[in-house]
Amino acid sequence: MKLATVRTATGTAAVRIDDDAAVELDAEDLGVLLARPDWRSAAETATGARHELAGLDYAPLVPKPEKVLCVGLNYRTHILEMGRELPEYPALFAKFSRALVGAHDPVELPAGSEQVDWEAELGVVIGAEVRRATPVQAAAAIAGYTVVNDVTARDFQYRSVEWLQGKTFERSTPVGPWLVTDVEPGDISCEVDGDVVQKADTSDLVFGPAELVAYISRIITLVPGDLIATGTPGGVGHARRPPRYLREGSVVVTRVEGVGELRNVMVTAN
Amino acid sequence: MKLATVRTATGTAAVRIDDDAAVELDAEDLGVLLARPDWRSAAETATGARHELAGLDYAPLVPKPEKVLCVGLNYRTHILEMGRELPEYPALFAKFSRALVGAHDPVELPAGSEQVDWEAELGVVIGAEVRRATPVQAAAAIAGYTVVNDVTARDFQYRSVEWLQGKTFERSTPVGPWLVTDVEPGDISCEVDGDVVQKADTSDLVFGPAELVAYISRIITLVPGDLIATGTPGGVGHARRPPRYLREGSVVVTRVEGVGELRNVMVTAN
Repeated sequence: MKLATVRTATGTAAVRIDDDAAVELDAEDLGVLLARPDWRSAAETATGARHELAGLDYAPLVPKPEKVLCVGLNYRTHILEMGRELPEYPALFAKFSRALVGAHDPVELPAGSEQVDWEAELGVVIGAEVRRATPVQAAAAIAGYTVVNDVTARDFQYRSVEWLQGKTFERSTPVGPWLVTDVEPGDISCEVDGDVVQKADTSDLVFGPAELVAYISRIITLVPGDLIATGTPGGVGHARRPPRYLREGSVVVTRVEGVGELRNVMVTAN
Repeated sequence: MKLATVRTATGTAAVRIDDDAAVELDAEDLGVLLARPDWRSAAETATGARHELAGLDYAPLVPKPEKVLCVGLNYRTHILEMGRELPEYPALFAKFSRALVGAHDPVELPAGSEQVDWEAELGVVIGAEVRRATPVQAAAAIAGYTVVNDVTARDFQYRSVEWLQGKTFERSTPVGPWLVTDVEPGDISCEVDGDVVQKADTSDLVFGPAELVAYISRIITLVPGDLIATGTPGGVGHARRPPRYLREGSVVVTRVEGVGELRNVMVTAN
């Protein structure tokens, strides 16, 4: 099942994406839907207003998650090829919900940055409240997967020891287009202006989705709609020689096989 | 004027704290109040239900701020005495709203940490939406000040390069008791079990309140109710030889002259 939040004439609506149409669910966005304990069966059986797939305007998957958590270096192959040791604990940082945009929205270039970079990531969406989850509880609390590009202003990221300011520029992080509930994610890739710049297998994650949910839930309660961006593989622009950065008009396509695809054009912030 | 959020028989209420009573405002918490453009005049003139000061049960000042931003090393004297250079940019990190507790609430010891430490901080509360603020706009967007203790699990803070996981344990961060709107903050101090462990002057901040608001607003829009914890002075337990940490039953008093005082007992998390 694929679920999304789309913009409508009157606001937003949670929808189920079928093969031939998007069907409205009785919720203003996917976060509202996921907060209902019976969200899965309600979504499966809904028969609301229908929208043509071609005309859908995707909002950020969950427009205002309570929490957005991101993971630093988390792809085994990339860590080892850089000569580092595998980490014992995940590197966790946050992003504010105002940073999120929809799957096909323009992405605003962080103003003042000369080093705007891509980071294709598998996103994990929480579907049930969990605290101090066992591995089984953690896996059960995952509603499904989505696609994230953790677009990063490298110069701001490295202005201090804490990465937040390079990671949470307004309208810089596309998420979506949908949540898939019954699929194992496959390869992850990023294309910039037609060049494949990142390609990896999401099974190469050091800390996988359920492990991250269990770990984070020992620190703080995870709730429906929370988003975890699980980290990016090798191939970012900042690590290239010479480095390569995003500019106005750059087209970034972020894809996770079996999950979905983001397609975003970089624009100058108003 | 002093404004707070208190717990009532039916939930929470925003109140004005007068010399002789707390007067209910027409808002369920201070965040809801601050979102109204006329919050200041509405609060000044309100004549709602009155509560005795002695019996007030303070909730986190703004129970669910959209954003909680924290600043790393930010006291000039402390930075210089440690032989470091003054930073060019603030070190910013986030905290989730579930970490917040009220001014007299028990503070939960982060489970699994052997190194729980105190960090007395001046809190800045936003009272108007600002984006790319000039210094004058930034100052005007500050609703006022409060007191924060950024209680930190040092071992978790240093598990990775990113501090978040040591900073955002559930119910670990007291904030309050109130917002003061017309006072310049003075000395900041922290007492643990009666010992003064931190003492400094809030005018010693490298990046002051308005400068932080202006800086952050170039990255992301600040909105009413957002909280900025401005950093802690020297005297934390982790830097002592031998180090000193908080234990079950430790009593932590955090004070900013002219602003207010937190008094919290450390408890084991359920």
